[in-house]
Amino acid sequence: MLITFEGIDGAGKSTQVTKLKRHLQERGREVLALREPGGTPVAEEIRELLLESRNDITPVGELLLFAASRAELVQHVIRPALESGADVILDRFFDSTTAYQGYGRGLDLAMLAEINRIASCGLVPDMTFYLDLTPEDALMRKFSEKSLPLAFESGELDRMENSGLAFYQRVREGYHRLGGENPERIVMIDALLSPEEIHRKIVASIENFAVSGQTAGT
Amino acid sequence: MLITFEGIDGAGKSTQVTKLKRHLQERGREVLALREPGGTPVAEEIRELLLESRNDITPVGELLLFAASRAELVQHVIRPALESGADVILDRFFDSTTAYQGYGRGLDLAMLAEINRIASCGLVPDMTFYLDLTPEDALMRKFSEKSLPLAFESGELDRMENSGLAFYQRVREGYHRLGGENPERIVMIDALLSPEEIHRKIVASIENFAVSGQTAGT
Ligand SMILES: Nc1ncnc2c1ncn2[C@@H]1O[C@H](COP(=O)(O)OP(=O)(O)OP(=O)(O)O)[C@@H](O)[C@H]1O
Ligand SMILES: Nc1ncnc2c1ncn2[C@@H]1O[C@H](COP(=O)(O)OP(=O)(O)OP(=O)(O)O)[C@@H](O)[C@H]1O
Ligand SMILES: [Mg+2]
Ligand SMILES: [Mg+2]
Repeated sequence: MLITFEGIDGAGKSTQVTKLKRHLQERGREVLALREPGGTPVAEEIRELLLESRNDITPVGELLLFAASRAELVQHVIRPALESGADVILDRFFDSTTAYQGYGRGLDLAMLAEINRIASCGLVPDMTFYLDLTPEDALMRKFSEKSLPLAFESGELDRMENSGLAFYQRVREGYHRLGGENPERIVMIDALLSPEEIHRKIVASIENFAVSGQTAGT
Repeated sequence: MLITFEGIDGAGKSTQVTKLKRHLQERGREVLALREPGGTPVAEEIRELLLESRNDITPVGELLLFAASRAELVQHVIRPALESGADVILDRFFDSTTAYQGYGRGLDLAMLAEINRIASCGLVPDMTFYLDLTPEDALMRKFSEKSLPLAFESGELDRMENSGLAFYQRVREGYHRLGGENPERIVMIDALLSPEEIHRKIVASIENFAVSGQTAGT
């Protein structure tokens, strides 16, 4: 199975990826958990390029670089792993491109749909868990990790509050649209639940999928 | 004006780019002659990535990297130059992608059309000079530069003859299709003519375009 996790920054994706990976391994499955961009020699070089020279790069250039990195990962790693019978868990996949570049930054949605199809080489997740959280709650969660005064001092909080909240609000609305358009694949989960409750819902969905071949409302 | 040159390897594109650039400059025009991939800091890094790690890269990954490099060049260099009133001459542009990756390597033509549109940010050449040459003549031309026995010894000729000729034949047929589909923009010229004769035809086409706003049959 190909399982992807989606949600705004701080929603709890990485936490759930770790839990699900352990769960599936305990049930004897071969599991590969991955995070973009990166994962192949070429994709790692693209990752560096994106991180190093981010300031000079245009939105379309960035989009195409991410797409190239994804195409490499799909063909060199994800597809071979699925074909060998392993499960693959992805911390973000093409729904992030739609939500962030499309709804968040305003790039043309039809263009993004084309790029997503090409970059993923037609591969579509069997199940996508979207962890739903308001930007305000995400902000609280992110800054409870550090001291709040420190975040203020560094200007980090300011930046997120000024431009960030409206942006993340658009991204969240984008995820809601995606969920509505792809109910057969995307399972929406309230990210305010405890990590253990979320994990139980995810496991129940996967078991239901294995039995019926369909996603279940949670 | 945006003018592009197309044709298989050895058709004489670089020779004509140099001649046309000099001609336009002598007539007082500001001229920028460029060659992909490269031309911006990010595009140069992509170029290195494409050249260094070519062996591991998938066709779709390569396509998307070229596209990213092109998007950067168009937005950071070509479009600003055109807007400042300069002429831009390109040694290959998106028709090469269609001819080589599409007709030559068999990638899906509809997908390539999408990628080309996105990568060029909607920019289309005013005129495209396609220098038409058979792969056999191109081979002769390429190896008359070196000694023929040397080319045999190094295995270079072998490789081109075995897989190369059929490939270049498909690329040439692709260019013929493109010419038929875009007669308002693509001017086909017999590349067996002398460099001076070709140059005169190109200049005549451009003058005609400047007067009538249309490409002329040559
Ligand atoms: N269900 C939860 N309830 C409360 N806190 C949580 C929950 N899940 C994760 N957290 C905490 O929230 C923070 C962000 O979690 P995590 O890194 O898993 O999110 P993420 O979606 O992967 O974020 P990013 O997009 O930044 O990688 C961490 O401090 C984590 O411990
Ligand atoms: N019209 C011509 N007649 C005969 N020889 C030519 C003509 N134009 C160019 N040549 C020669 O053919 C060779 C290839 O020319 P050139 O480098 O201009 O081609 P090109 O299309 O740019 O090739 P490439 O795709 O490899 O860059 C050179 O040796 C050049 O001098
Ligand atoms: Mg994370
Ligand atoms: Mg050349």
